[in-house]
Amino acid sequence: MPEAAELLVCVKCRRGQEIPEDDRRPGQVLYEALMDREAPEGLRITPVECLQNCDHGCTVALRGGDRWTYVFGNLHEVSHPDMLLDGAMRYQATTDGLIPWRERPEHFKRNCVARIPPLTTDPVEETTE
Amino acid sequence: MPEAAELLVCVKCRRGQEIPEDDRRPGQVLYEALMDREAPEGLRITPVECLQNCDHGCTVALRGGDRWTYVFGNLHEVSHPDMLLDGAMRYQATTDGLIPWRERPEHFKRNCVARIPPLTTDPVEETTE
Repeated sequence: MPEAAELLVCVKCRRGQEIPEDDRRPGQVLYEALMDREAPEGLRITPVECLQNCDHGCTVALRGGDRWTYVFGNLHEVSHPDMLLDGAMRYQATTDGLIPWRERPEHFKRNCVARIPPLTTDPVEETTE
Repeated sequence: MPEAAELLVCVKCRRGQEIPEDDRRPGQVLYEALMDREAPEGLRITPVECLQNCDHGCTVALRGGDRWTYVFGNLHEVSHPDMLLDGAMRYQATTDGLIPWRERPEHFKRNCVARIPPLTTDPVEETTE
């Protein structure tokens, strides 16, 4: 069984919109939509206040265990929750965080903002996708 | 004494240029320029193969201890090594990774690609800058 993984969801993302002060932000809506679904086993979903990818929100990050951490942007709170949980499940099934390219959701292929190597591996030797 | 910090430098960054196959890439030049300088105490500089911020390279990340991890883009291999070491030193001097805004290098203010909370804190309670 692979180690647990964590899906960090920026709940402050405005997704480029003007949001009234007292209204729910798209990032918050995305987080709630994820929490309303059944999370894959071994996946923790965590709200965070700002991942500083504000120009390309909504934004999430996937991390955990000895995996590469990935940041994905341009997410939509209505269209993307299912895709996101599917991608998170595939991520969690890996030991290194590298979802095989052909299994990777199209949105992940085109909207990776950045990735960060695990603390535990030699980043030059093991990073080629 | 704050915990050690790590500056990850993508050595594959092309900085938007066509680079001949056998030529050194801007990311590699940046890494070598950093290594030629005296690193701040407690800072480890690590080459990595790809941080997947390829459209806005050169790219680096700062992490370590209980700090937020930051990814910065649009770095130039000739103009930015000194700024980068200065910023890394200020980062390393913090316990949470949040360089006070007025001390933050201008380039860091405008070119943060993303940031990721430490594993150890409550990300909603402690993230407001």
